Formats: sequence, C-alpha cells, structure tokens
Amino acid sequence: MADPSRETVSDPNEEIMRATYRALREHGYADLTIKRIAAEYGKSTAAIHYHYDTKDDLLAAFLDYLLDQFKDAVHDVETTDPEQRLDLLLDKLLVDPKDHRDLLVAMLEMRSQAPYEDRFSDRFQQNDEYIRYMLRTVVDHGIQEGVFNDIDAEHAARALMTIVDGARTRAVVLDDGNALTTARRTADEYVTHVLLSEL
Amino acid sequence: MADPSRETVSDPNEEIMRATYRALREHGYADLTIKRIAAEYGKSTAAIHYHYDTKDDLLAAFLDYLLDQFKDAVHDVETTDPEQRLDLLLDKLLVDPKDHRDLLVAMLEMRSQAPYEDRFSDRFQQNDEYIRYMLRTVVDHGIQEGVFNDIDAEHAARALMTIVDGARTRAVVLDDGNALTTARRTADEYVTHVLLSEL
Repeated sequence: MADPSRETVSDPNEEIMRATYRALREHGYADLTIKRIAAEYGKSTAAIHYHYDTKDDLLAAFLDYLLDQFKDAVHDVETTDPEQRLDLLLDKLLVDPKDHRDLLVAMLEMRSQAPYEDRFSDRFQQNDEYIRYMLRTVVDHGIQEGVFNDIDAEHAARALMTIVDGARTRAVVLDDGNALTTARRTADEYVTHVLLSEL
Repeated sequence: MADPSRETVSDPNEEIMRATYRALREHGYADLTIKRIAAEYGKSTAAIHYHYDTKDDLLAAFLDYLLDQFKDAVHDVETTDPEQRLDLLLDKLLVDPKDHRDLLVAMLEMRSQAPYEDRFSDRFQQNDEYIRYMLRTVVDHGIQEGVFNDIDAEHAARALMTIVDGARTRAVVLDDGNALTTARRTADEYVTHVLLSEL
C-alpha cells in the first residue's frame, strides 16, 4: 500500500484523511482521539469536528477513503490477460507489510470492532464485496478464455480473500514479518494448482 | 470446539475458566470485567482475585486453557494415516462456527490486542507454533511415506494456518456464517492439488 501521507495536497478532507492515517499508525485505534488527529492535521479539534461529529464517524469515512485508494490502485492494473491480471491483483492485496505494519495493527483493531459498530461492518463488507467482484471477474474471464479450469469462480475469490485476510491477521497477531510473503506464495500455489493445472 | 461450560466440575480453576468462557461470549473482550466473570462464577469478585490480579492475567490463563482444550481434542485424533490425520486436524481447526461464533468475536478482540499485550502475544504465538508443529509433522510423515509430494512442509503448515486464521477473521468481521466452510473447502483444495496430486 502506498503511503498516502507523503504527497502535498490542499483539499481539507484529503488532509484530514492523511492526518488520520498518520495518527492511526502512531496511536492505534483504541488510543486514537480527535485531539491526536488534530495534532497531526496541525489545526484545532474544532476544525475536525466541523466535518465529523465523532471519532467513529471520521474512521468510517477513513475506511471509505482506503477503499477508494485501493480502487485507484486496481485501476492502475491495465492488463486484461487473466493470468497476469490475477497475479497483479494479488500483488496489490498482499504487498509487503514492512511499510504499513502499523496500519495493519490499527485495521485489525477496527476489524475486531465490526460486530459492535455497524458503520465499520458495512465498510468492511462493501470492501470485501468489491474485491471479490474484481477477483471473480478475472477468474470468470480466464475460464471463458480457456486459460483457467472451469471451477467455481465465486469460491475461488473467497478462497483467495481467506488467504489475504489470514495473512493480515497473522502479520499483526504473531508479529510475523513474513505472513504476507507466505500468503502470496500460498495464493500462487492455489492459482497454479487449482486454476491453471489440469485437474 | 466443544462447549466447555456444559459439563459439571468441581475444580475451582476449571470453574473460573468456564465462567470466563461464558462471560466472554456474552460481553466480548472490551466489556468484560472481573465482576461479570464473578457473576457467571456465582461467587464474589474476591474469589476470583484470590487467583488472578487483573482481567488480563485471567485472560492469559484462559488462553492457556483454550490451548489445552485444543491439545486434548488433537489427542483424540488417533489415526496415524497421514492423509486421514491431516483431514481430521483440519476438521478440528475449522469446525462450524455456529455454536461458538461469540467466542470467535471475543478471540478476535484479544488477537487485535496482541501488539499491546505481551501475555496475549506470547500465547497466540505458542498456540500457533504448537498447531504448526502438528501440521508439519503429519505432512513430513506423508512425504516420508510417499503419500504427499515432496514439498516444503513448514510452508504447507503456514499456508494451512493462513487459511484457518483468514476464516476466523472473516467469520467475525464480515459476519460470514460460511467463512469456516469456505476455508475447509480451500484447505481441502490445497491438500488435494498441492500435497496429493502429481505436480
């Protein structure tokens, strides 16, 4: 994932999102406050409350922002060759965590709160549906072109997302710096032996 | 996972663990208090503080208790046939979540706190190492017997645990009642096409 905090911008909402990103990485979810986000923003808490009533309102918007970032990254994948496209999508989903491990930590805290916070739950579901749609579409395309085996594309998308979510959880819980690399290899094995090899 | 709260016992520590299990399922991690555990225990908070100073002390012991439960369940797997044994281990790891979804919710909250709470982190790592050891051993055994392909057994164990952890996360975050079934199928595909089929 690219670090969205590095470029300069002038849109206040974009600036608040980048401040939220930095504050989340620094403090985690539980210790995050509007005050801490304001400190990263370089303005008063009132300047943030003008846009968002509560921390969780702001974080729901932040999850939308992350999904938009991911959509932008996916639109950069220009190839339509199914095997190559699936490979690049998996790269985007399982990039090396070294530069954003702190974000994974904060995201897992937010994920764990989904059963208690509908706005988080809605975003995570929407995000997952979007990515599964991308994966299913490329798998279906590969099946139509005769490149992939005629398997259940929706299941394949869910299987790959299970591997992605497993990696994100393991990177945080086990502090495993190789969790995403292991998952990338596992996803590759799945693609090679379930989608591509003669069954 | 069997529901450990159902049988009758007389060991006070066992009773406290079962009370913790029920309280965690009912209140989740964040809202759990010694008082609420005491209410399930049917005794005073002092009766719990006699054994444990803080909620997190108690929960660290609870994680040990869960690992012991899992070890007991694994010891019930008596077959030494590698393919069958791997199958049964995966069954134990990916049992239907319907009867313990609330526990998965509380566990993900505790998992998300691992970066902030060394005692949780230690237990989750120890648990993962134990289960990976079980998986690696059966895969190695299958390789020696010529039943499985000569693959990297440590990677295979990590790949399967990535699928398991992905399922646990998805069951909670996406409220996906089929997450563990999907993961069981994915693990089966991995075993069939990576371990068993001619590569």
